Amino acid sequence: MKFTEMLAAAWAKNDSLLCVGLDPDPAKFPPHLKDKPDRITRFCTAIIDATADLVCAYKPQIAYFAARRAEAELEAIIHHIHEWHPDIPVILDAKRGDIGSTAEQYAIEAFERYKADAVTVNPYMGRDSVEPWLAYEDKGVILLCRTSNPGGSDFQFLKICSSAGATAEVGSGGTALYELVAEKVAKEWNTTGQCGLVVGATFPQELARVRAIVGEMPLLVPGIGAQGGDIEATVKAGRTADGKGLMINSSRAILYAGQGEDFAAAARRAAQQTREAINRYR
Amino acid sequence: MKFTEMLAAAWAKNDSLLCVGLDPDPAKFPPHLKDKPDRITRFCTAIIDATADLVCAYKPQIAYFAARRAEAELEAIIHHIHEWHPDIPVILDAKRGDIGSTAEQYAIEAFERYKADAVTVNPYMGRDSVEPWLAYEDKGVILLCRTSNPGGSDFQFLKICSSAGATAEVGSGGTALYELVAEKVAKEWNTTGQCGLVVGATFPQELARVRAIVGEMPLLVPGIGAQGGDIEATVKAGRTADGKGLMINSSRAILYAGQGEDFAAAARRAAQQTREAINRYR
Repeated sequence: MKFTEMLAAAWAKNDSLLCVGLDPDPAKFPPHLKDKPDRITRFCTAIIDATADLVCAYKPQIAYFAARRAEAELEAIIHHIHEWHPDIPVILDAKRGDIGSTAEQYAIEAFERYKADAVTVNPYMGRDSVEPWLAYEDKGVILLCRTSNPGGSDFQFLKICSSAGATAEVGSGGTALYELVAEKVAKEWNTTGQCGLVVGATFPQELARVRAIVGEMPLLVPGIGAQGGDIEATVKAGRTADGKGLMINSSRAILYAGQGEDFAAAARRAAQQTREAINRYR
Repeated sequence: MKFTEMLAAAWAKNDSLLCVGLDPDPAKFPPHLKDKPDRITRFCTAIIDATADLVCAYKPQIAYFAARRAEAELEAIIHHIHEWHPDIPVILDAKRGDIGSTAEQYAIEAFERYKADAVTVNPYMGRDSVEPWLAYEDKGVILLCRTSNPGGSDFQFLKICSSAGATAEVGSGGTALYELVAEKVAKEWNTTGQCGLVVGATFPQELARVRAIVGEMPLLVPGIGAQGGDIEATVKAGRTADGKGLMINSSRAILYAGQGEDFAAAARRAAQQTREAINRYR
């Protein structure tokens, strides 16, 4: 099934725009798990099994696995989601970006090895660096646009004064780089309807601007919770007319909601509260 | 030892600006190696042992390893370089880029797990996404600036019309994004002298422009060989006053120079020719 169809079905079935980010840091695990050899898989699958009826997607962050030689655990966790919760799409948060021949290898990593349903990709190297991802037509390709971190403004917010074909305008100040990324992805790269964009919750005005540029395209929105983004402002700025269109990510606030043996139940309560807080403004 | 010192020593000792890219694709291996279980390690270490007196750096491309579950082979190959050719720095070509807490994990992957001496990083997410890399003060942090692929022009060549503090100018047309990246890295991010930039050989005019902006900073230059960049134009545009400052990368043209059991000797001849072609114009 196509990623976009899976996502739409999960939005509806679970009445949820919440994406749970899987950033497993063993130093933050509950004490009873810390020394177990299979702690990463046990921690993540417990969180997944406790929240799978509350989310529209899971987003494992590959860096947390790569830092501790846990590639096999990442494979096992994604396999667990597909096996036990086949309605929930998996977005591999990898933010890769390289020339075409190398991007082909990264696409094999994400889609054939890990069997992710979608992946995050960095647009800085331009269209031919993205094409190998798009060649997997069922898969989602979610491009960084306006990221949630403070440094996101260093380049993404710069005004572009000349660009053939750009039509996005912000007042008289020119088009910002992130708007041009949104426009290029929506109008030129997304010929197969498989693209999405990453737009941080920490910048609701710019989230609204991106929504205006891209129509119904799904937006992955990190930055609520630990990073400080406001849920009401995020939902109001980013939702589509039918109250969907968003994958609002929360990682640490859900994963580490509890520190006891009941950590998965605590994660479920945090996920429930976040889903409801989001739904209040849809 | 600091990456920049290792690099300077290797430039001098081997009289070479050649960096050999390790992009192992088993489909292109000589027939006698294709079915061996340790084919990736055998192929790469044979190339390394045949060329270690001819190069200033090795640059393994992590995507080729990740696509085939070959992380252990990548660790073994980097260990082999450090063990047998300790004068040659290893640049892990990973082009990572993420928010600070995730970049910390990627830095652990590159510097603690793989023990690379330097890494390539994508600047799109701005300064706080780069700081965790810079915290490893002995390591090289080589930021994408003007990449060698055709799509490199999609965003990197856009003219910026407003940016606080930018002083780079190109005629009357404003500053291009890649120039602003060069300027930010040189003037703001490189406080510890550990930064470099990636500038493609396919754009020699822009390589000269970057050299003018960044002074003596080391530039990693992909794009000669299979990608079509011209060696004379590259060296003349990018060298520093003392005929150094460059890591000119060649991957496929060296790795796959021969298809027989003597593939490593063929790689050595190709590396020799490339080093000499480069040295002709230093």
